[in-house]
Amino acid sequence: MNGRNLKELSAADALRRLASVPLGRVVFTRHALPAVRPVNHIVADGQIVIRSSTGTILSAEVAALEAVVAFEVDELDAEERLGWSVVVTGVAQLVQDPEEAARFKSLLRPWVAAEMEQVIRIRPEIITGFELVPAAVPG
Amino acid sequence: MNGRNLKELSAADALRRLASVPLGRVVFTRHALPAVRPVNHIVADGQIVIRSSTGTILSAEVAALEAVVAFEVDELDAEERLGWSVVVTGVAQLVQDPEEAARFKSLLRPWVAAEMEQVIRIRPEIITGFELVPAAVPG
Repeated sequence: MNGRNLKELSAADALRRLASVPLGRVVFTRHALPAVRPVNHIVADGQIVIRSSTGTILSAEVAALEAVVAFEVDELDAEERLGWSVVVTGVAQLVQDPEEAARFKSLLRPWVAAEMEQVIRIRPEIITGFELVPAAVPG
Repeated sequence: MNGRNLKELSAADALRRLASVPLGRVVFTRHALPAVRPVNHIVADGQIVIRSSTGTILSAEVAALEAVVAFEVDELDAEERLGWSVVVTGVAQLVQDPEEAARFKSLLRPWVAAEMEQVIRIRPEIITGFELVPAAVPG
């Protein structure tokens, strides 16, 4: 199989792809160590929206402290070695406004059977993404 | 659809699952910001092995400085809302021994058509994982 090249995505294309997939990974720093959690998400009003229970690391630490996080989404096919990945970096915040929180909750159903009372938004500040494309064959 | 519960995986089960999938995500801190890169990997001698080009952030900064990284792998089905995720935390290091590096290179073919001269190992120190299982229906 020929190799692949990395083709950079525009910010608009990257965000569109991120919104097209139900699952991403929140990346943060905890006790000076890198940490990561898979979560399901939506994109609403140009922000990434996720839900979490009260008292979790994501709601009680990361979002409560308005920490900077990265959010990664990919669709990569190991057979074909094609696909794409997008990483958004931005501040995570608890959605405090009750009406806004209720609206997001109506749009986003958590997978896990637990009270997911906290709604967290990530405002994209840095958006990067790439697509794997077949490398040109010399000749 | 009923909700899901999180069932913790044993370290042995988590590592076995991580080794069964060709693709994971290296999570690290750069300039005090969380960062993440999807990579293809293998597990050899109980270590996660990846390849990178000379001069990339992963080889020239993360592994060269022997930084602590997290490595995340998941298989999550958005339709069924079932699957699992594993996170390993450990020190990333360049594989310096030429024979060892050559052996790992023979086992691990990079996807991207670039010189991938650097071999990086991550020695698992903390291993966590969960599986989504159907929540018991009351009654």
